[in-house]
Amino acid sequence: MPPSITSLTDHACLVVHGPDQPGLVSVIAALITRNKGNIISLDQHSSDPEDGGFFQRIVFHRQNLVTVMDDIRADLADTLGPYEMAWSLSDRSQPKRMAILASKDDHCLLDLLWRQRRGDLPVTIPMVISNHTDSVEDVRSFGVPFFHVPSQTGPDKSESEAEILRLLKGNVDFIVLARYMQIISSDFLEQVGVPVINIHHSFLPAFIGAAPYRKAKERGVKLVGATAHYVTENLDEGPIIEQDVVRVTHRDHVHDLKRLGAEVERSVLSRAVLWHAQDKVIRTGNTTIVF
Amino acid sequence: MPPSITSLTDHACLVVHGPDQPGLVSVIAALITRNKGNIISLDQHSSDPEDGGFFQRIVFHRQNLVTVMDDIRADLADTLGPYEMAWSLSDRSQPKRMAILASKDDHCLLDLLWRQRRGDLPVTIPMVISNHTDSVEDVRSFGVPFFHVPSQTGPDKSESEAEILRLLKGNVDFIVLARYMQIISSDFLEQVGVPVINIHHSFLPAFIGAAPYRKAKERGVKLVGATAHYVTENLDEGPIIEQDVVRVTHRDHVHDLKRLGAEVERSVLSRAVLWHAQDKVIRTGNTTIVF
Amino acid sequence: MPPSITSLTDHACLVVHGPDQPGLVSVIAALITRNKGNIISLDQHSSDPEDGGFFQRIVFHRQNLVTVMDDIRADLADTLGPYEMAWSLSDRSQPKRMAILASKDDHCLLDLLWRQRRGDLPVTIPMVISNHTDSVEDVRSFGVPFFHVPSQTGPDKSESEAEILRLLKGNVDFIVLARYMQIISSDFLEQVGVPVINIHHSFLPAFIGAAPYRKAKERGVKLVGATAHYVTENLDEGPIIEQDVVRVTHRDHVHDLKRLGAEVERSVLSRAVLWHAQDKVIRTGNTTIVF
Amino acid sequence: MPPSITSLTDHACLVVHGPDQPGLVSVIAALITRNKGNIISLDQHSSDPEDGGFFQRIVFHRQNLVTVMDDIRADLADTLGPYEMAWSLSDRSQPKRMAILASKDDHCLLDLLWRQRRGDLPVTIPMVISNHTDSVEDVRSFGVPFFHVPSQTGPDKSESEAEILRLLKGNVDFIVLARYMQIISSDFLEQVGVPVINIHHSFLPAFIGAAPYRKAKERGVKLVGATAHYVTENLDEGPIIEQDVVRVTHRDHVHDLKRLGAEVERSVLSRAVLWHAQDKVIRTGNTTIVF
Repeated sequence: MPPSITSLTDHACLVVHGPDQPGLVSVIAALITRNKGNIISLDQHSSDPEDGGFFQRIVFHRQNLVTVMDDIRADLADTLGPYEMAWSLSDRSQPKRMAILASKDDHCLLDLLWRQRRGDLPVTIPMVISNHTDSVEDVRSFGVPFFHVPSQTGPDKSESEAEILRLLKGNVDFIVLARYMQIISSDFLEQVGVPVINIHHSFLPAFIGAAPYRKAKERGVKLVGATAHYVTENLDEGPIIEQDVVRVTHRDHVHDLKRLGAEVERSVLSRAVLWHAQDKVIRTGNTTIVF
Repeated sequence: MPPSITSLTDHACLVVHGPDQPGLVSVIAALITRNKGNIISLDQHSSDPEDGGFFQRIVFHRQNLVTVMDDIRADLADTLGPYEMAWSLSDRSQPKRMAILASKDDHCLLDLLWRQRRGDLPVTIPMVISNHTDSVEDVRSFGVPFFHVPSQTGPDKSESEAEILRLLKGNVDFIVLARYMQIISSDFLEQVGVPVINIHHSFLPAFIGAAPYRKAKERGVKLVGATAHYVTENLDEGPIIEQDVVRVTHRDHVHDLKRLGAEVERSVLSRAVLWHAQDKVIRTGNTTIVF
Repeated sequence: MPPSITSLTDHACLVVHGPDQPGLVSVIAALITRNKGNIISLDQHSSDPEDGGFFQRIVFHRQNLVTVMDDIRADLADTLGPYEMAWSLSDRSQPKRMAILASKDDHCLLDLLWRQRRGDLPVTIPMVISNHTDSVEDVRSFGVPFFHVPSQTGPDKSESEAEILRLLKGNVDFIVLARYMQIISSDFLEQVGVPVINIHHSFLPAFIGAAPYRKAKERGVKLVGATAHYVTENLDEGPIIEQDVVRVTHRDHVHDLKRLGAEVERSVLSRAVLWHAQDKVIRTGNTTIVF
Repeated sequence: MPPSITSLTDHACLVVHGPDQPGLVSVIAALITRNKGNIISLDQHSSDPEDGGFFQRIVFHRQNLVTVMDDIRADLADTLGPYEMAWSLSDRSQPKRMAILASKDDHCLLDLLWRQRRGDLPVTIPMVISNHTDSVEDVRSFGVPFFHVPSQTGPDKSESEAEILRLLKGNVDFIVLARYMQIISSDFLEQVGVPVINIHHSFLPAFIGAAPYRKAKERGVKLVGATAHYVTENLDEGPIIEQDVVRVTHRDHVHDLKRLGAEVERSVLSRAVLWHAQDKVIRTGNTTIVF
């Protein structure tokens, strides 16, 4: 039987990256073999034949995986230590815990909740946090806790951010900003300690900042798009995970662009979330490798 | 028999635009009827229900069209005068004359020559002008005159532009910059007196200016694109006619982006040229209506 | 202010089709003008310059539209009678009533409910009918009545169809089969008297019938698709309204194809529903004109 | 410097496939390491976690590759023998030799010739064979030999096929049917002994056989497509390498579908040729793995 997205008992995912060196593939494959793993899929990328970066993602099957995770981790530390590689090993039967931050617009939020319920996303959703209460009933009807943290008025958001941090701390593996219309401070990013994925409603780097659909209409573009990216200190400048576009015409007003774009936003965000949750995305500089 | 793209005897195309006013459609349709025309297709757009712009393109059939073009033009001038509408009437059996300006890269140039020879573009090509001689044999093998006008060194391009103007003057209805790597002066634009279409190798307004594929690689975008637009005084800022994109990945180096982008460039440019040649594009402000 | 999709007070939509005849556009435009309407948009298509079909959709603005609908209808009957044209006039402020029939799979059902609630579909949803009870709570949380009509076992579905007909009769303007997994009898179609739109989970005419994703996997196609069409007596053979595809690879198992295809299904169906609700779709033979 | 498509000195491509067995990745990686190769990219696919097929493509760098190809081949034979794997090792500095068979329609033919000249396809083109003479000058202007082999009238094509076979025998590594409008006999396929790639002008399995664009128009589809596939005994039934589609509307006549489809045909065919030439395509049953 083929593996499903969400229940992969005895499947591990190993991600390794760092400076490319001859023999790495062989060393890593041998490690998996001696730990009785069978490689199911392997993606490898070298950014340059000489002096480039090495990026690898391996999914392997190992009976009774849970009983040997620590042994394999110890072996990885010993074996990869001399190569100065970064690595992570995850048990694919353990879904990542994803918090969603949202505002009034609910299309991305509801889409993620529904895909998760359908079994199309290998995540649990311990909480939704919003600065509005519009979606409270919808969210709870999915059996997901909803927390309302109103935005502070004024530029200082430290108190509301602190409350959000208290809710998140220790409870989540990554955060999704599903059309969350508050700017995240660099202080927040530093303290939260987990990856944060945002959906921007334009084809970045076009139309950075506010009101991208209005700007798109004014510029007369023939396609509008959406971009999912990791959040960094610089607004709309983080590493891009996924993008897509949809065709528009002169007949479409700004509200049509919003409607058509909303469809792209939810598709793009859901793919980015799926790939992140499957450990398929590796950050390198300000870009990503997506296996 | 359905109409072909290139030989439409007794077919006229009427384009009308200006301030929207009640009854315009009726007035224009009545005019065509009393001139014994039969409307084949009609596209109409109002930019706003109140005080908006009116844009209309009508293709109509009229037996012995060529004998009555002047009468219809006179009727149009009389009838539309009070409404202060801009209009143009063209005989679809008369292909527009298109000059191509190119440099070393030949993918857009050859693609236009092929399509024209195949009968897929309703244009004649009286000349290709290039600041290089690389394509001279290819161009002449299509039976198209090739003129070499080397670029002047230094910022002053007035002499080479003057020579190009002498070649074009009176001989062409529009100009296509098929990856022509010289900046066109506003002086040239003013004097040339016909529309100029450019293909920019990015999804504008992303990556304006030089080396867009390199910038796209550095930003880590997941799609690269191309944009065909009318040339105005401001580089890469003119009204967009058509755009498209193609998916790229972390595996693609800058030269792959160029290769994949080249395919989009020639598609996008050929569609823009086709639509312009069919009088399907109306400029309004810095945007276009494409019927 | 631009028109929204759902509240178009004083906007009428006139659809006319029949044998093409010179002067039709003029006659119809004059009728609208004398009834004090102002044409907002006009789409016209002639299937052939000679002896073809004439298809036209006009949206016009008329103050106090509701008070003159009967007068305009009478004028249309008088004026178009001699031309033997079919026509319909609708008040765009009156949303169409759409019933949804569904089974266990809820992605198309929920997508339509969401879009309608968001104001992205100009319809009301008087009822959802299902042969399963899985979605009852979801549907009612949208404030939409849910009726459970279990499928009869055996080939004779006349009783369950009769019950569905009783529920629908007089209450709906069109019906959407949102992954409804029961075959509709030609008897039902005849009696229901309103258009029925179905979403088929393949790019028709490829993979007609059951289990299209399994067949697609076996055939090794590189794209899977979905098709929205009007239901006729012949299964999967009705006039196509909209289609789209998504790229798949050898890595995708049948369940991945289902997941990826589900996204296309809901997009395609929602576009077909939107266009039908806006009177943009005209059936002609076994095909459609979509303006 | 990044590798270009066509000149990859000291790069080898190893393709291995067969029944999946634990440790295979490790065994193969070790082999490359002990032969002093450095893995540049690695793609691996297992069709099923248990008892599935194993498919792997590795590109590795080895200084002075040409001097050790025989040694590596011997090592591969020894090492992989016990595993009963099929494998092939190619020197990426040696472009494959591609023959093109064409008829009157030249869009796919010219596109391949031009991409090869541009350096976008890692192939040489020793000959073009056509049953017509229309393209002789175009082909020879690329410096490529052109052979005219008229089709025999009547169903028996054995003589013309025999002549084609004499031309091809020993001179080519694969064959492309670039809109070649003659049916290939199974006898021919057997004798020619190299892969044959065809471009079919529809989205298979829709519209198998002749006149697909006419059938598409009649069925009223909203997208038309093209399919590149390996040729097998059964017409239009071979393993699919690549497919794509383009949107069409009710306005498009059959000749527009042909024009729009022609663009998709040449894109799809060129991608299939590129991937085949790069050893990225592995046939398995009647489907393909495309890395």
